[in-house]
Formats: sequence, C-alpha cells, structure tokens
Amino acid sequence: MRQYTSPLDEHAKTVVGTALNRALVDLVDLSLVAKQAHWNLVGRRFRSLHLQLDEVVDQVRLLADDIAERAVTIGVPPDGRAATVAERSAVPEHPAQWVQDTDVVDYFVTALTAVIGRLREGIAQTETADVVSQDMLIGATAALEKHLWMFQAES
Amino acid sequence: MRQYTSPLDEHAKTVVGTALNRALVDLVDLSLVAKQAHWNLVGRRFRSLHLQLDEVVDQVRLLADDIAERAVTIGVPPDGRAATVAERSAVPEHPAQWVQDTDVVDYFVTALTAVIGRLREGIAQTETADVVSQDMLIGATAALEKHLWMFQAES
Amino acid sequence: MRQYTSPLDEHAKTVVGTALNRALVDLVDLSLVAKQAHWNLVGRRFRSLHLQLDEVVDQVRLLADDIAERAVTIGVPPDGRAATVAERSAVPEHPAQWVQDTDVVDYFVTALTAVIGRLREGIAQTETADVVSQDMLIGATAALEKHLWMFQAES
Amino acid sequence: MRQYTSPLDEHAKTVVGTALNRALVDLVDLSLVAKQAHWNLVGRRFRSLHLQLDEVVDQVRLLADDIAERAVTIGVPPDGRAATVAERSAVPEHPAQWVQDTDVVDYFVTALTAVIGRLREGIAQTETADVVSQDMLIGATAALEKHLWMFQAES
Amino acid sequence: MRQYTSPLDEHAKTVVGTALNRALVDLVDLSLVAKQAHWNLVGRRFRSLHLQLDEVVDQVRLLADDIAERAVTIGVPPDGRAATVAERSAVPEHPAQWVQDTDVVDYFVTALTAVIGRLREGIAQTETADVVSQDMLIGATAALEKHLWMFQAES
Amino acid sequence: MRQYTSPLDEHAKTVVGTALNRALVDLVDLSLVAKQAHWNLVGRRFRSLHLQLDEVVDQVRLLADDIAERAVTIGVPPDGRAATVAERSAVPEHPAQWVQDTDVVDYFVTALTAVIGRLREGIAQTETADVVSQDMLIGATAALEKHLWMFQAES
Amino acid sequence: MRQYTSPLDEHAKTVVGTALNRALVDLVDLSLVAKQAHWNLVGRRFRSLHLQLDEVVDQVRLLADDIAERAVTIGVPPDGRAATVAERSAVPEHPAQWVQDTDVVDYFVTALTAVIGRLREGIAQTETADVVSQDMLIGATAALEKHLWMFQAES
Amino acid sequence: MRQYTSPLDEHAKTVVGTALNRALVDLVDLSLVAKQAHWNLVGRRFRSLHLQLDEVVDQVRLLADDIAERAVTIGVPPDGRAATVAERSAVPEHPAQWVQDTDVVDYFVTALTAVIGRLREGIAQTETADVVSQDMLIGATAALEKHLWMFQAES
Amino acid sequence: MRQYTSPLDEHAKTVVGTALNRALVDLVDLSLVAKQAHWNLVGRRFRSLHLQLDEVVDQVRLLADDIAERAVTIGVPPDGRAATVAERSAVPEHPAQWVQDTDVVDYFVTALTAVIGRLREGIAQTETADVVSQDMLIGATAALEKHLWMFQAES
Amino acid sequence: MRQYTSPLDEHAKTVVGTALNRALVDLVDLSLVAKQAHWNLVGRRFRSLHLQLDEVVDQVRLLADDIAERAVTIGVPPDGRAATVAERSAVPEHPAQWVQDTDVVDYFVTALTAVIGRLREGIAQTETADVVSQDMLIGATAALEKHLWMFQAES
Amino acid sequence: MRQYTSPLDEHAKTVVGTALNRALVDLVDLSLVAKQAHWNLVGRRFRSLHLQLDEVVDQVRLLADDIAERAVTIGVPPDGRAATVAERSAVPEHPAQWVQDTDVVDYFVTALTAVIGRLREGIAQTETADVVSQDMLIGATAALEKHLWMFQAES
Amino acid sequence: MRQYTSPLDEHAKTVVGTALNRALVDLVDLSLVAKQAHWNLVGRRFRSLHLQLDEVVDQVRLLADDIAERAVTIGVPPDGRAATVAERSAVPEHPAQWVQDTDVVDYFVTALTAVIGRLREGIAQTETADVVSQDMLIGATAALEKHLWMFQAES
Repeated sequence: MRQYTSPLDEHAKTVVGTALNRALVDLVDLSLVAKQAHWNLVGRRFRSLHLQLDEVVDQVRLLADDIAERAVTIGVPPDGRAATVAERSAVPEHPAQWVQDTDVVDYFVTALTAVIGRLREGIAQTETADVVSQDMLIGATAALEKHLWMFQAES
Repeated sequence: MRQYTSPLDEHAKTVVGTALNRALVDLVDLSLVAKQAHWNLVGRRFRSLHLQLDEVVDQVRLLADDIAERAVTIGVPPDGRAATVAERSAVPEHPAQWVQDTDVVDYFVTALTAVIGRLREGIAQTETADVVSQDMLIGATAALEKHLWMFQAES
Repeated sequence: MRQYTSPLDEHAKTVVGTALNRALVDLVDLSLVAKQAHWNLVGRRFRSLHLQLDEVVDQVRLLADDIAERAVTIGVPPDGRAATVAERSAVPEHPAQWVQDTDVVDYFVTALTAVIGRLREGIAQTETADVVSQDMLIGATAALEKHLWMFQAES
Repeated sequence: MRQYTSPLDEHAKTVVGTALNRALVDLVDLSLVAKQAHWNLVGRRFRSLHLQLDEVVDQVRLLADDIAERAVTIGVPPDGRAATVAERSAVPEHPAQWVQDTDVVDYFVTALTAVIGRLREGIAQTETADVVSQDMLIGATAALEKHLWMFQAES
Repeated sequence: MRQYTSPLDEHAKTVVGTALNRALVDLVDLSLVAKQAHWNLVGRRFRSLHLQLDEVVDQVRLLADDIAERAVTIGVPPDGRAATVAERSAVPEHPAQWVQDTDVVDYFVTALTAVIGRLREGIAQTETADVVSQDMLIGATAALEKHLWMFQAES
Repeated sequence: MRQYTSPLDEHAKTVVGTALNRALVDLVDLSLVAKQAHWNLVGRRFRSLHLQLDEVVDQVRLLADDIAERAVTIGVPPDGRAATVAERSAVPEHPAQWVQDTDVVDYFVTALTAVIGRLREGIAQTETADVVSQDMLIGATAALEKHLWMFQAES
Repeated sequence: MRQYTSPLDEHAKTVVGTALNRALVDLVDLSLVAKQAHWNLVGRRFRSLHLQLDEVVDQVRLLADDIAERAVTIGVPPDGRAATVAERSAVPEHPAQWVQDTDVVDYFVTALTAVIGRLREGIAQTETADVVSQDMLIGATAALEKHLWMFQAES
Repeated sequence: MRQYTSPLDEHAKTVVGTALNRALVDLVDLSLVAKQAHWNLVGRRFRSLHLQLDEVVDQVRLLADDIAERAVTIGVPPDGRAATVAERSAVPEHPAQWVQDTDVVDYFVTALTAVIGRLREGIAQTETADVVSQDMLIGATAALEKHLWMFQAES
Repeated sequence: MRQYTSPLDEHAKTVVGTALNRALVDLVDLSLVAKQAHWNLVGRRFRSLHLQLDEVVDQVRLLADDIAERAVTIGVPPDGRAATVAERSAVPEHPAQWVQDTDVVDYFVTALTAVIGRLREGIAQTETADVVSQDMLIGATAALEKHLWMFQAES
Repeated sequence: MRQYTSPLDEHAKTVVGTALNRALVDLVDLSLVAKQAHWNLVGRRFRSLHLQLDEVVDQVRLLADDIAERAVTIGVPPDGRAATVAERSAVPEHPAQWVQDTDVVDYFVTALTAVIGRLREGIAQTETADVVSQDMLIGATAALEKHLWMFQAES
Repeated sequence: MRQYTSPLDEHAKTVVGTALNRALVDLVDLSLVAKQAHWNLVGRRFRSLHLQLDEVVDQVRLLADDIAERAVTIGVPPDGRAATVAERSAVPEHPAQWVQDTDVVDYFVTALTAVIGRLREGIAQTETADVVSQDMLIGATAALEKHLWMFQAES
Repeated sequence: MRQYTSPLDEHAKTVVGTALNRALVDLVDLSLVAKQAHWNLVGRRFRSLHLQLDEVVDQVRLLADDIAERAVTIGVPPDGRAATVAERSAVPEHPAQWVQDTDVVDYFVTALTAVIGRLREGIAQTETADVVSQDMLIGATAALEKHLWMFQAES
C-alpha cells in the first residue's frame, strides 16, 4: 500500500502525530457527550442549553475533521473509532440518564477544562516540530476557551 | 427530577425504547467509521469515496439525532456515548490504519447490511407498539438501503 | 357546482373526512393560542418561550394546511373558521390576560396532550380507510409529541 | 405579576388599545377566512385565486402580529383567541362548503371593505393619542386597500 | 457482472419490483404528456395551466427517480425507456396537435385517475412484501391525488 | 381553435419546424436513456458516472424545453410523446438490464455523436430560414459536443 | 470631450448605430406600455396578466440596457428619452384609461408583432456590418417572439 | 366596464389622484434620464457615476410602481406613457449626446430638486384627503432627498 | 468647501437638525452599552440575554445610520464621535465590570425609557418642520418601544 | 458574583488583558470615526470613499467583538464604553464638520498607522503570555494594514 | 493514448484550433496583467479601478476556460502555460512597478484593442469552419468591447 | 509617484518582500498548470480529477491574491506577469499535449512538493521580520499540504 511522503522528518512526524491524535480523540468524545446532554437534559433552562450544546457539537465536529485531516497530511493515520475514543479520551464520564440543567453546565466546565489542558500541552509540544499543526491546535483552543467562558458565565 | 409522561403505555415504551436505542448505537457507530474511512482512505478512487463517505456521515448524523429525540419523546433516555457504542454496536470493526479504496467499499457493504438487518427487526417490533416510531425506522432503512445500493454498484 | 370524484368510497370518505376535520380544528386552535401566549407572556424565561412558541406556530400552521388540503383531496370540505374552531376544538381555554412563563409551559403540556390524544384516535380510525391520510396524521403526531417533550423538559 | 410601564398616559392607552384590539380581531379572522376560501374554492380561476389568497394570508398574519405586539408594547393585552374572534370580528360569515370562484372574489371585496372601514376609524381615533400606533394602522390600511383593488379588478 | 444482494427475499423482490416498475412507467409517461400539454396548450387560461403543468412535471420527475432508485435498491433493474413507456403505460393517449385549455384539464383528471388507480394497487400488493417501498408509493399517491384535486377544482 | 401567426413564411416554417421537431425527439430520448443508465449502472466508476449522467439529464431537459417552445413560437406543434420518441429518435437502443460503467461511456460517445450529427444538419437547414432558431440549435450543439468530449476523455 | 474609438468603420458604425437606436426606442416604449397595462388592467384574468406583464417589463428593460450599451460600445450615443420615444416608437398607442383583459392581450399581440418586425429588419441590416450587434438583436427577437406566442396562446 | 369603489370620497379622490399622477410622471421621467446619463456618461468618474445612476433607476422604478398602484387603489387610472411623460414632466431636458461627468452631477442636482419640490406640494395637498397616500409621498421624498445629498456631496 | 442646499428653510433645519443629532448621540451610546453588557454579562440567563443584546445592537446601528444620513440630507453635519457621545448622551452610565443578568435587564428598561422619552420629544418638535424626518423618528421609537416591552416582560 | 477561572496565570492575564483592552478601545473608536467620515464627507470621490469607509466599519466592528470576547475568555472585563473610548483611544481627533475627501484619506492613513503601532506592541507583549490572544491581534493587524495600503494607494 | 473524434474535418479543426489557441493565450495574459494592475495601482481613482480590474479578471477567466474547453471539444489541446503566454500573447508589456491610475486606464485601452483585433480575425476565420466556435468568439468580443468602452469613457 | 510608508523597516521589508514574491510566482504558475491539466487530461478518472483540479485553481488564486496584496501592504510591488512566472517559478514544466490521468496525479505530487518546500523556506525567513506575513505563508502551506495529501492518496 502507498507510503505518504511527509512534509516533516520522522521525529517531528511522531511528535506532531501523537499530539493530533490525542486532540482528535478528545474532540470526538466531546461531540458525543454534547449530543448526549442535548438529548437527556431537563430543567428550566432546557431550551437555551439544548441549542447551545448543538453549537458546541457543530464546531467540535469541524475541529475534529480538520485535525484528523492534518494528521493524514503529515503521514499519520488518525484514529477516531468508538473503542479508541472510549479508551483514551480525557473527557470525564457523562451519566447515562436524564441530567439536570445545572449539572450539565458544571459538567461541561469540567470537560472543557480537561480538553483545553491537553490541547495546550499539544501547542507546546508542536512548536518546534510543525508551526502549521500548532496553528491549528491554537485555533481549536481559542474556540473551546470561548465555549468555556460561556458555560462559566451561566453557571 | 422530572418524570416524562409518555404517549405510550409501559410495555410499548419498553419495546420501542429498546428498538430506538439499538438503532441509535448503530447509527452513531456508522458515522464514526465513515469518518475513519474518509480520513484513512487511499487508492485511485480516493476523491470520489472521500466525498461519498461524507454524505453518509451527514445523513446518518441527522437520522441518529431524530431517533434519539424520539426516544426522549416517548420517555426513554437515549444513550450514544462512546463506551456504549463500542460495546453494543452491530457495526463490524474498522481497521486502525490506511485502508485501500476497494476494501472500504466492501467494508461498507458489510456494515450497512448489518445495520439494515437490525433496523428491519426494529420495524417489525414496533408495528403494534408505536406507528410513529416505526415510520421513523422505515425512513432510516430506506436511506441506508439506498447507500447500500451505491456501495454495491461500485464494488 | 362541481362534485369531486373521491379516490375513496363513501364510507371511507366519511370516516377519514371526520378525522381530518377534527385534526384541523385542533391545529388551527393550537396556532391561535400559541400566538396568544407568544404575545401575553411575562417572566424571566420570556425570550426563550417567546421564540419557542413561534416555532410551534410555524409548524402547526403548515400541518393544518396539509391536513385541510388532504380533506379537499378526498372530497370533504375542510372547516377552519373561527366559530367552528371556538365550538369544536379540544384545546383547553387560554386566559385573556398576561400569563406567567411557568403557567405557559404547563398550559402547553396540557394542550398538546389533548391534541395528541385526538390525533392518535384519528390514526387508529383511518388505518383501513386510507393509508395516505393516516400517514399524514402520523407525521403530525410525531411533530407535536416532540414539542410536548420540550415543554415537559423545561417545566 | 409584572405591571408594564406604558409609554402612553391612561386615557391614550385605553383609546389606542381598543383600536389595536379591534384591528387584531379583524385581521386574525381575515387570515382564517382567506385560508377557508383557499381550500374550498372551485371554478376555472381556481389556481390563480388559490395562490392570491395565500398571499393575503401571509401579509395579514404579519400585520396581525405587528399590531398585537404594539398592543403589548403600550401595556394592553391583545386577544386573538378563536372565541373572541368569532364574537367580535367585523368580517362577514364565510360559507362552510365549496365556494365558486366568482363568489370568492365578491366575498373578499365585501370583507376587505368592512375591515378597511374599521381600520380608517382607528386611524382617526389614534391620531392625537399615539402617532406610532397610528402609523402602523396606516400601513395595514395601505396593504389591505391594495388587495381590495386586486379583487375588484378581477370581479 | 455484479449481482446485487437484495434486502428482500426472491418472492418479495418480484412482487415489489413489478409494482415499482409499473409505477415508473406511468410516472415517466405522465411527465412527458404534461410537457406535451405545457407546450401545445391554447386558450384563456393558458398562462395559469402552463405554469401548473410544469409543477406537475417537476414533482413527477422526482417521484419517478425515487421509485427507480428504490427498484435498484431491492435488486431489480428499472426500465424507463421510451419504447417501454409507449408500450406499457396506463396514461391515455394525448393528442399530437394544439389542445384547448378546458380539454387539458379534463385530460389530466382522467390521466391522474388512471395512474392513481395503479399506484393504490401497488400499495396493496407491497404491504407484506416491503413496507419501505410501500411508504414510497403512499407518498407518490398523496402527491398525485393533490394534483387531481387541483385539476378537478378548476374543471 | 386559434391559428398562430408565425413570424416566418410558410416554407421557412416547414423547414424550421421539421428541424426543431427532430431535435426535440432526439433530446427527449437522450434524457430518458441518460436516466436509464444513471439507474442501471454498475462498476467501479459508478458514483462518478452516476453524477455525470444527471448533469446530462438536467441540461438536455432544458434544451428540449427551449426547442419545443421555439417550435410553438413559429407556429408548429412540438411532439415529445413517448410513442413519437420511440419511433423517430436517432438515439441507439439502450439495454434493458444492468450496464457496466465502461459500456455506458462507450454508449454515450455513440449516442451523442448521432444526435450531434442531426443537430448539425439542422443548423445547415435553418440558416436561411430562421437565424433565431439556428442560434438555438448552435447552442444545443455546443453543449452536447462538450459532453461528448468528457465521455471521450474518460473512455 | 472624448472621442470613442469604434471597433467598426464609419459606414458600419452608422448602419449598426441606427439599427440599435431604433430597437432601443421600441423596447423602452414596450416597457412603458407594459407597465401602463399592468396598472390599468381589469377583468377576470387580471391577476394572471398583471404578473405576466411584469415579466415582460423585466426582460424588456434588460434587453434595452444591453442594446443601449452596445450602441455606446461602437461609439454611437443611445437615445432613450421620453420625447424621443414618443416620437419615433413603432409601438401602437395604448389607451389612457382602464383596459379590459381581452383587449390587453390583443394589444400586445399587435405591439409585439410591430417591434419584432423592426428587429428582424435590424438583423438583416447588421449581418455584414457587425456580427456582435446582430447576435444581440437575434437574442432580443427570440425573447419577444416567445412572449408573442404566449399572448397569442391565451387570446 | 368595471367601476372601482374608491375608499375616498369624490373630492378627495380627485385631489389625491392628481397628486399621484404628477408624481408618477416625474418619477418615470427620472428613471429614463438616469438611464440616458448612465449610458452617455464620459469622464474620470465614469465608473462611480455609472453605478450610482443605476441605483437611482432601481429605486425610482419601485417608487413609480407603488405610486401608480396607489392611484388605481383609490380608483384613478395612472398614466405613465411616453407621450404623457414627454408633455407633463417637471424634469429638465437632458442632452441627446455624450455628457461629461461633472455636468451629469449638476444636472441631477437640478432635476432632483425639481421633482422634490413637486412631491412636497403633493404632501401638503393630500394631508386631509388621504393619510395613506400622503405617507407614500413622504417615503418617496425621503428617498430622493437622500440621493440629492449624495449628488451634492460629490459636486 | 461645498454648501448643501437644504430642502428645509433655516429655522426648520435648525430644529430638525438638533432633534436628529440628539437621537444620533443616544442611539450610538445605546449600541455601545448594549455591546458592553453583551460582553460583561454573567448569570443563568447569560446565553439568552447575550443573544438578545446583539439584536438590539444590530437594529440600533441601522437606526443611527439612517438618522445621521437624514441629518446630512437636510444640510446638518451629524456628530457621533466618542467624546460627543460621552458628553451629551441621555443613556445612564453602565458599570465597568461584570454585570449580573437581572441587573442588565433593569438597566436596559431604564436606558430605553430615557432614549424613548427624548425620541418622543423629537417627534413633537419636528411635526411642523419636516414630516420626512418625523416619520423616521416614529420608526425608531416603534422599534425601541418594542425592545422595551421585551426587557420588561422578562424582568 | 461569579469568578472566572482563567486559562492563564495571574501575570499573563494582566499583560494580555491590558493589551486586549487597549486594542478594543482603539477599534471601537476607529469604527466611530469611520462612520463620522462616512456621513460628513464631501468631494468628487464621495461615493467611492463613502462605500470604502463602510467596509472599514464592518470589519473593525467584528474585530472589536472578537477581541472583547477573548478578554472575557481569559477572565478580564472588556471596556468599550463611550467615555472610556473618548479618554484612552490612540485615534487622533476627527473634525466635527464636513470633511473634504482628500483630508479623509490623509486622516485615515494617520489614524490606521497609530492603531497598527499599538497593535504591534500588543503582539510583542503577548507572545510569551498567550499565543491564542496573540494570534487574534496578528489577524487584526493584517486586516488594518491592508486598509492602510488602500488609503495610501489613493492618497 | 486516446484519440479524440473531432466533430470537424481535419482542415476545419486546424483553422479553428489555431484561432481558439490564439484567443486563449491573449485572454490568459489579460487576466494576469489585470491582476498585476489591480495590485500595483496607485492614485486617486485607486479604489474604483481596483474593483473594476477584478471584474475584468473574473470575466476573462471564464472566457478563457470556455475557449480552452471548446478547443478540447474539437480535438485540439489548448496551451495556456506561462511560457507559451509570455511568448505568443498580443497583450503589450505591463510595467513591473507601481503604476499610476491614468496610465492603467490608457494601458487597458491599448491592451483590449489589441486582443479585440485578434478576436475579430478569429471570428472571420472560423465562419465557414465552425459556427459553434465562432459564436463563442463573438461572445468574448462583445464582452471585451464593453470593457473597452468603459476604460475609454473614463480615460 | 507615491512612496508607501511600510510598517516594516528596510531590512525586514526586503526579506519579506522577496519571500512573498517567490511565493506569488509559484502560486500563479500552479494555477496555470492546474488549468492546463484540467483541460488536457484523459483517462478513466477524468471527471474526478477534472473537478479536483478546479478546486486547486480556486484556492490557489485566492492565496496568490492575498500574498500579492500583502506585498503591496509592506511596500513591495508584486510581480505576477507571464514572463516573470515563466522565468522564476519552481513549478516543473507541464507537457503541452494530452496528459494521462495517472501522470497528472504524479505531476502534482511533484509540483506541490516543490512549492511547499519554497513556502517552508519563506516561513523560516520571515519569522523575525514580520509575523503577519509569516502567518499568511503558514496558511498557504497548510492548504497546499492538504492538496498534496489528496494527490498522494489517489496516486
């Protein structure tokens, strides 16, 4: 099967590929738990959070896609399958049943904080290896930090 | 916490809820493996399949959302989290590495056949319990069978 | 004046026409009280409910139009005039004055439950008489049950 | 419950509120009979009138919404419920059965004339009380008089 | 050459495939005669019918495409070629010359009635064989019956 | 019934009318066989050809409509009925069963060549009779020759 | 003041400029009488003709603009002022008062025939002088002849 | 022929009808001279004025249409034919040849001032006769005065 | 530098210009404090108010632009610079720090009441001086009073 | 009241917050003076600059909004109120009266140079503190420098 | 490698292919120098010309693409590579540095005149060989002559 | 002629200007060869590559425009003329005749690799000189590397 010519050397490729795949797993999981909360949510702020969570889903799916395609671009296969996500994600477990609106807000403050922490590690790690990938992780961080603000503002 | 008044009686609710949750798990998994293939695909038909897989993803995500919201509507909490999907899905395992275009086509013929089989069971089970939910499963089946045709046509 | 040739026999036409006209009256009334609440609403969740009620109005108007046109299609004149609606609707009376947000949510849980009950009776009655009309009532039921979920979730 | 601070004094508020609520009732009724005719219409000009009546419906619904919201804005609860409309509207009774195209045109010449008459009274009454509300009634009159022209032109 | 795996068993596939191919032939023919009338029409209602017939064409083409693709989906090759249509269609012959507006309306009342009759037979035949295909035939019937109403209303 | 005043004299009208009606028959047939292939196609290039054939259908339908309306404009009734098409078209017969992708490409190279040949004859015949109609046939030829290039390029 | 360099020689420029200016005057007048009829029309076909006339206006305005700009392009100042139009137009006089629908149709059959006659003279005159301008006059003729068909079809 | 029932009494109808017809004639003429200048313009600011004049044309055409339709609405036939415009317009004569950019700006300052003067007279005359028509003339004045500012700003 | 010719006499120009400039200053300030609150807002209704405030900003910016351009149109230079706004605005001071959601609602009830009061003074002052400008202030008042209703409804 | 958890440490937060608030003040002021010039501009290039300044306004408003929301995201309240802007902005004073087109161009060359200077300082200051905010300031600088080019090119 | 079947005979193919390839080279070069001027332009009319040149670029790119694809359609490989363009183009050399606005206008009057001259030769050469290609060259000429007018008008 | 004030010092300006002009030349050439291949392509994957190459063209043209405008912004004249491109581009020579699909894919893997190599040099060179320009080169690199992935995936 075809071997991709990477624009990066072997070492940089490993470092950046690892950072991108970690980000991918977290973002896919974030999109799944945001949908989970979007459906199972109850409480007075139902409608407002129901809409807000779908905005999170839409943006996170785009970010995940960009990051996965960047991984391919540097010659590393991305892995966003359910089992991989279930095993490696930094996103805390989400309850299986109805969730109260106030708990949803707290949950996403925690979940976003965890993912942002890993993304910022990735930014640091990729700085010398590949500015193009780093730029993409910075963009993802900016987006998630803005969502974090919003959940904090209303908690 | 709030108890939903279901438009269905207790028995119908259990039957329909089970069918919907099985469909949800399969559809979420289908959207994840379609993305996985969208990224890891190689071969001469790359571009054509790359686009086709994203159409599968878009449609399957909408179907999953409708089915999950129908579950809530009848008073059953939907479960589409990564761990649940990894454990209960009928979708066969997708490789973790680069995949050849011809293998991708074969994989989706198999995967769609499996999911359609479970959906048709769900249609049979929900007929007397809830025609509204049944209608939704029929719609999902029609959509997936059309994708199945397309993958067969090009395999 | 012209006599329509109905695609149904006389008996089926009477059964289905009655079911459709009952649904029409309820849906027209639902659109009027949803506007009434949209205007007279007060309370902290004003904006969120104000928008949500207009989505109910938009969808219910489309459903009423489809059902009235189906009645004509089978040769039965639909009746959606104010006096008919005031007399025959299953929708409970809405207050004439300002209404508190929490009361609005409770009111629509009750109102939607009443209308859905009559729609489900209509689905049962039309099954052998006309699957085309039944299909339309199923679609209306699915839509209203989803709104019922949302009002329950935030009550 | 909340008391609205009206931008008008008590007397102006009563005068303007009465004029707006009369306009609201007439406009809601106009939208209902236009739909009624849209459905029950027969005759050679069916298609042309069928479309024209829906344009009346669309515009009248927007006018009704603006006028109801202006009533709230000056602190008067609007009332557009079916029973109120059935009792107080100036719109003449519409037949319950199929209507011939020529009769529909005549009916709407009469109905629009009646509603325009009441709107012009409202314009006169609100002149000193509230120019903002008067402006809205002038706009509604201009729109309905244009529809009146069209129905006259084709009668 | 490739053999499609059908989601239906051999018997169901034959029954449903026959029903779908009969519907396809009628719908393709309907789109051709509607264009024929759209061009050859004369009389005072020219413009109104000219536009109405194009709406019939647009909708019927979409229905034909869906039904043909459903046939492929269950493993039966659809046949919509001119010679097949000329031989097997239930649509009555349309004149080769200019046609008067009143005659066009009568012609389509007859033509639609014939096609609807065959579609309703197809709905009955497919009920136990394949609910997915049946659902599609119900949708086509609903659409054509609505057009039948409109032509009757203006005849 | 109404006699159209033609902008052309009797001779020119006959010449141009014949050329337009021949073009019409070929174009209607081309749209039917392109759909036939769009549905019955199998092989590795399925998706790419499936989309390409629908672009042929869309464009050819517009060309047929323009040419039929030009015929009416010069006072000649166009004839695009199934039986006429089946009898007079220059398009070669298309198989009734599944067709392999490579065969589809070859078939359309042949079919387009035949239709273009007749169109170029029409351009020659109409030059002195009616430049307006000739201009339309030139446009149709340009469009089909471009499709011919594309099918040749991929054969 | 600036002298335009014409892409045509002096003789061709005079011939073509005259043809274009004659077309311009007729087209501007056509747009004015079509609006006049659009407003003053009465009769049962009011709505249908009211809309049809506005389509004539829209298209004729675009044609006039293209032709005027082509005149400038070849170095000839276009003249579309009211007095010039009133004096030189080939369009027959339109009544100043209300006009019956049947009379409007007859009037436009006559008016379009007159303008088309002059356009076809222009096509003949410009053939050797400037194919670019001739092409534009052919396009205008095709458009007006299609409108002529429509008015004849409904007269 | 049909007599329109005017919403105004005989005297008001005469006063308002006269004001509206004067406005109509001026606005139609303004649209013609703006096109004339749009075509015949030369000079360094060609492109900027060329675009600006088309915006004048677009808006003035809409205003003319509204005012003509208001005239019909009150039962007065509007007259916007070339000869009427050439005879009664207040717009100063525009040269027949190329015009320099600076002269165009000056010309429109003069022309707009003339038309605005007549519109303001119309506003005064219609105040007691019909507030609806007056409102429309105010709107036209506001629009033209804004264009006047712009031409002054750049002169 | 250029002197604008005003459509108003010197006295009317001063009166109207003053009213417009006062409105401008208030509206620019309103747009700035609405953004300020949009950013600094905290509390449970964060998301709902965050969106509502941006709708205020969008509408107020358009109103300010229209009013400033009307000022120029009558020959008075508008002044919407930060220092002028800071000095002359009727809008109460907004806090510099985070603001609680309930306080934001109360603040805008107060702020809108203040601006509406000044706008209504402007409507009274401009009545005899310039109906065109008065009309614009009426429109701005209608818009702000509707926002006032909404903030009151949710306080 | 709620305390935001900042993704930055205390020192970085102060440095970045200061840089963002300085940028915000400059950008809000830039949007106000660009509108001021948009209205008060006179001269031959009026139309061209009038449009160009609105493009500056649109872009600068978006930049200001992003930067203010980034400040909140890192836990610092943004301050864009009129008094703050009047006091702290680096944008030079804009005249209160009509401004000549050439002066407007020079003014914006100066004003943009001043704001860009401060933005570049901000880029340097935030490099080690927060790459996410730095990225946003780089984007704003790129946009303003492009506008600077355009004003220089035409000065 | 594949041999294209040309719709033209060998001689016609050579004549037309040469004309099309000459047009292609000129149009590609025109798009490059229009961009060059778009960027390097300075002077008071900067913005207006900057926009105008981009409209030239957009249209010329489309024309070049159509002409190149026509060449392929008749079996001749088009050549639009930089070296070919640099060697064979009729477009005069454009300076490498900043260009003054007045010089840009003069340059494009010259450049367009040169390209139009060659296009008109091509029209003459292709008349008997291929009317389809000729039609395309006529269209390109019409477009460029209109741009030539505009540059002349403002020079 | 005007001297631009650069936001960079003399040294930085030279370094960055050189990097930008090199990128410009490569990108313009890339857009020309992508069109060349888009036209001259033959082989089974014709349609898929034909579309893909146009996406490359669209994106590369936008990148070239941004980079050229950045050069102007820092005071350096961009040079994208055919002769300059032919002389200085790093893009390998493209054949003048028909090209096989597999060769096209290989050619673009090579061409993109060459351009990306020069872009990455530019990123390194501009880091200390101008982060704004560097950011733009990073963006261009990310885009081209993604295209490189796609061509590799299908080679």
